[in-house]
Amino acid sequence: MAYDTTNIFARLLRDEIPSHRVYEDEHTVAIMDVMPQGAGHVLVLPKAPSRNLLDADAKTLGALFSTVQKMAGAVKKAFNADGVFIAQYNEPAAGQTVFHLHVHVIPRFDDIDLKPHSGQMEKPEILAENAKKIRAALA
Amino acid sequence: MAYDTTNIFARLLRDEIPSHRVYEDEHTVAIMDVMPQGAGHVLVLPKAPSRNLLDADAKTLGALFSTVQKMAGAVKKAFNADGVFIAQYNEPAAGQTVFHLHVHVIPRFDDIDLKPHSGQMEKPEILAENAKKIRAALA
Repeated sequence: MAYDTTNIFARLLRDEIPSHRVYEDEHTVAIMDVMPQGAGHVLVLPKAPSRNLLDADAKTLGALFSTVQKMAGAVKKAFNADGVFIAQYNEPAAGQTVFHLHVHVIPRFDDIDLKPHSGQMEKPEILAENAKKIRAALA
Repeated sequence: MAYDTTNIFARLLRDEIPSHRVYEDEHTVAIMDVMPQGAGHVLVLPKAPSRNLLDADAKTLGALFSTVQKMAGAVKKAFNADGVFIAQYNEPAAGQTVFHLHVHVIPRFDDIDLKPHSGQMEKPEILAENAKKIRAALA
């Protein structure tokens, strides 16, 4: 399916809408998920346009998962997490709701269940505070 | 944490225990998950030892997600799936049960829920039949 340049992540990458960026390099950006499944839930996006994993090129994939690994280590450290869950959804049947490739990086803790995917909006001040912790862990 | 060379996937990579291999290249192997969350649930493993995403080297990561992408396309085609779910669990708190890096590639269908992670064993003949479909899609 064709890539829609007006999707919310494309607009966010163009700074047309705000986000809590925690990391950026030449090929990727990491932001706080505004509907987190848990504290410190981050999304990693390639800057290059692709709908999802199925149509991404090799260069995009390599850069994307390099940043995913970096963010997995950062959120584990920032939140003193017991584990990290990585998830990536392709097409609506799999739970994809925004059609720009993105990977979920979610800190996990013993005895705390994940909240549902695409659930409730988190307060901006909580997201800002968590973003600060992640930036500190990356520094 | 140190890598345990007796983990089940390390043994499987050494052919000490059987598996339904659907794909293999220089750096990676894809097998049928014996406790599938749905028909066509595949695991992609790097041949190089690492506990999970947190300690994998860059070369391993690149090869791993290249094969993940290839398998995502293959299972979508093989099962005429509506979507594909990619999941990767780091440490027990996140659901990791075997401590050799692996990525879950799971076909998704409208109106069919996923079965639980690490649920019931699938019949070997069903796994063999599904493996055949995936190999055909890759051919």
